[in-house]
Amino acid sequence: MPSPDTTQTSGPLTGLRVLELGHFVAAPFGSRLLADLGADVIKIEAPGGDPVRQWGRQVEGAGAPWSSMHQRNKRSLVLNLKDPRAIEIVLRIVGTCDALIENFRPGQLARMGLDRERLEAARPGLVVAQISGYGQDGVYRDRAAFGVIGEAIGGLRYLTNHPPSMSDLPPVRVGVSIGDSIAGLYAAFGIVAALWARDRREGGDGRGRTLDVALTESVLSMMEGMLPEYGAFGTVRQPTGSRIATAAPSSAYPTSDGKWILIAGNSEPIFARLTALMGRPDLAQDPRFVGNRARVANVEELDRLIGAWSVEHTAAELDKLLAEADVPSTIAYTAAEIATDPQFRSRGMVREVDDPLFGKVLHAGIVPHVPDDPGRIRWPGPPAGFHTDEILRDVVGLDAAEIAALRRDGVAA
Amino acid sequence: MPSPDTTQTSGPLTGLRVLELGHFVAAPFGSRLLADLGADVIKIEAPGGDPVRQWGRQVEGAGAPWSSMHQRNKRSLVLNLKDPRAIEIVLRIVGTCDALIENFRPGQLARMGLDRERLEAARPGLVVAQISGYGQDGVYRDRAAFGVIGEAIGGLRYLTNHPPSMSDLPPVRVGVSIGDSIAGLYAAFGIVAALWARDRREGGDGRGRTLDVALTESVLSMMEGMLPEYGAFGTVRQPTGSRIATAAPSSAYPTSDGKWILIAGNSEPIFARLTALMGRPDLAQDPRFVGNRARVANVEELDRLIGAWSVEHTAAELDKLLAEADVPSTIAYTAAEIATDPQFRSRGMVREVDDPLFGKVLHAGIVPHVPDDPGRIRWPGPPAGFHTDEILRDVVGLDAAEIAALRRDGVAA
Repeated sequence: MPSPDTTQTSGPLTGLRVLELGHFVAAPFGSRLLADLGADVIKIEAPGGDPVRQWGRQVEGAGAPWSSMHQRNKRSLVLNLKDPRAIEIVLRIVGTCDALIENFRPGQLARMGLDRERLEAARPGLVVAQISGYGQDGVYRDRAAFGVIGEAIGGLRYLTNHPPSMSDLPPVRVGVSIGDSIAGLYAAFGIVAALWARDRREGGDGRGRTLDVALTESVLSMMEGMLPEYGAFGTVRQPTGSRIATAAPSSAYPTSDGKWILIAGNSEPIFARLTALMGRPDLAQDPRFVGNRARVANVEELDRLIGAWSVEHTAAELDKLLAEADVPSTIAYTAAEIATDPQFRSRGMVREVDDPLFGKVLHAGIVPHVPDDPGRIRWPGPPAGFHTDEILRDVVGLDAAEIAALRRDGVAA
Repeated sequence: MPSPDTTQTSGPLTGLRVLELGHFVAAPFGSRLLADLGADVIKIEAPGGDPVRQWGRQVEGAGAPWSSMHQRNKRSLVLNLKDPRAIEIVLRIVGTCDALIENFRPGQLARMGLDRERLEAARPGLVVAQISGYGQDGVYRDRAAFGVIGEAIGGLRYLTNHPPSMSDLPPVRVGVSIGDSIAGLYAAFGIVAALWARDRREGGDGRGRTLDVALTESVLSMMEGMLPEYGAFGTVRQPTGSRIATAAPSSAYPTSDGKWILIAGNSEPIFARLTALMGRPDLAQDPRFVGNRARVANVEELDRLIGAWSVEHTAAELDKLLAEADVPSTIAYTAAEIATDPQFRSRGMVREVDDPLFGKVLHAGIVPHVPDDPGRIRWPGPPAGFHTDEILRDVVGLDAAEIAALRRDGVAA
C-alpha cells in the first residue's frame, strides 16, 4: 500500500487534527465524518487492530472490505495502551490535536492515565468527545453498551413493529447499528460546535469543552412528538407497521417478483392518479376512500386492493408505471439497486475506490456534500498500524532507534 | 406568553445567528439542534405557520404539544414570501446572520429571489444549508421528497423486515421520520464545520459554503458495510428481523403481560448466566449452543426456548431477574417507560418545560450534552409570529408605523 499524501486535503475541516481512541462503530464513524471533510484523524488501535475490522465477510489475509470505507481518510497507529510509554506518546500526540474522540466505557479514559486535567495540560483547549451507551454519569453509566439495548431504551425498537393485531412476531431491528451511527454523528456535530466556540476570531474563548454523547439519548432525540404527546394526553405512541398512522395510502406493497414497492398516495390528486392506473377510478369516488380521513379509517381494505393490484406486476413494471403516472413511489432498494442508482452515482454517493488490499471497493460517498469545497476520499482505510512509523517520527518526534525499541518491546506495532 | 429573554443564552453556539426557512421536520429539526446549543434561530413561517404545527393531537385553540419541543429556543416571524417586500426583509435579516437553513424543493429559494449571489451580497460569507429529498442536482432533483420514499431509496426500509421465511408482511417503517431527522442533523454538523472553516482565528478563510444535504444520502450513509460487501462479493444484505445475523441469542422476546424484552446473551459467560437463570444450565453445555457460531446456526430453536421461558414472566420480573444475573437486557421502552426512566431524568434528557400554551410539556433534552457549557431549554416553541414585531423592530430596524403597514397589507403577521 503506497503511503497516502497526507498534506493534500480539501473540505472545510482541512487543518483540523483529531485523535481517535475508538473501536467498533460510534467513535470511528464520528471521526470518519470529520476525516471526510478534511480533518487529519489519527486512529490509535490496540495490537491486533480495532475489532470491527473483523466484521463482515473477509478477503483472506486482507480483512473485511467494510473497513476500507469505515476507516478511510484516517491514519492508523497501533499502540499497547497498557504500557505507560504508550500513554506518554498519546499525550504528545494530543499536544498537536484540536480534539479527541473516544468510546471506552465511562471512566476508562481516566483510568488509563488520560483524565481531563492531564489532557488539558498536554493541549490546553482540547475538545473531548466521549461516546457511551448511557452517558458519563447517572445510575446506568457502568452498564455495558449494547447497541440493540440502547436503541430499545431510546424508544426506537418498540415503534419498529407491526401492530399486535397484524403480527405476533417481535419488533424488528433496523438491520444496522443505527444508534451507534447517530451517536457518532452527534459527536462530530458537537466537536465542530465546540471548536467554533473556542477558535472563532470574534468571541472565541479559547477553552476546551467536553461532549458527553449517549447512544440512548441520541436515539431518543429522534423520537419526534412521542414525549410531548405522552405528557399532554397520556397517549403512548404505537407501532403502525409499514403504514403511517395519519395518512393513507402510504405503505409497502408486494410485487410479482418478490420485492416491495413503496407507494405514497395520500393526497387527493395523487390518489386519483393511482386508482386510475389501477384501472379502478371508481375507488376515488368511493365514500370509503374520499379524503385522507376516510382512507385512514378504511386502510385495511384500501391496502388489500392496492396489494392485489401490485402483486400482479413486477417491481420494474410498477416502478415505471407509477413514475409515468406521477405517483410518489420506489422499489425498496437493496444494495443492488443502490449500487446502480443513477442519482447516487451522479452525485458521487456511490463510487469505486481503488484499494491496494481489495482492488476496487464500493464506498458510500461524503455527507454532507459541500459543492464549493467538497471533501474527498483521499485514501481507503489503511491496515492497522500502517502509519505507525510516520506518526511516531513526524508527529511525536522520535528517531528510528527509538521507534525500533518501541516495536521491539511491543509498545508500538 | 411572556417574551423570552433572548439575550441570556448558554452553550457553545451562543453568538451564532441562523435564519430558518424550513417546514415540516428536516430543516426545523436541524435548526433546533443549533438553537439548543445557544444559537439565535429566527424561523420565518408562511401565514398560518409551519404545517408541522398541526401534526399530532391538538389542544383546542393552542395547537399541538409537539411544536413546543420542535420549535423551542427559536424566534418566529411570519412573512408572506410571495410579496417582494417580504423578500427585502429576509435579505435584511440575512445581513445579520451567519447561516441559513432551508428545505424547499431544489431551485425554489432562487425562484423566490434568494439566489446565492443575492444572499452573498446581503451577507458575504453566509453559510447556506439546503436540505432536499435527493440533492440539489442530478436526475431526481425535482422529485417530491416523501420521507418514506427516501428512506427506502437509502436502503433502510428493505433491511427493516423479518426474513421472508418468517413473515409475508411488508417491511416496517421505524415509526418516526428518521430520514428527515438524520438529514437535519447532518445539516447542523455541516453548518458548524463551515463556520469553523470561515471564522477561525488561524486559517479561517472568511468565505461562505453551501451544504447540499439529501435525505436519501443521509440514510445511505448509515448503512455500514452494505455497499463494500456488495461490491466485493455481490452479496445483498438481507433483513434479519429481530435478530442480528452474526450473534445469538440477541433478540426481543415476549413477556406474559404483552411486552417485549430485549436480551443480548451472545458471549459465553453471559449465555451461561442466562441459561442458569432459565433453570436450564444444561443448554450451555448443549453442543447446539456451545459457541456463538453454533448458536447462530441453531438460533430458531434457541430463541424458541428463550421465548417459552420469557413468556412465563412479566416484563418487570424479567427486567429484575436479568439485571440481577448481569445479562444485558431491557424492556422495549414505550413513551411511558422513557418518561419515568431514572437515567433519562437524572441527565435532563426527559424534563418538564413550562409552556404558557400547554402548561407543563414533556420534552426530550439537549443532545449532545455539553457538561461544561450546557445548552438550555430557554423557552418552549412560540406560536407562529410571536416574535414578528420584535424582529422587525430590532433586527430589521423598522418603526411602528412601517410594521403596522406590513401587517395591514398581509406581508407580515
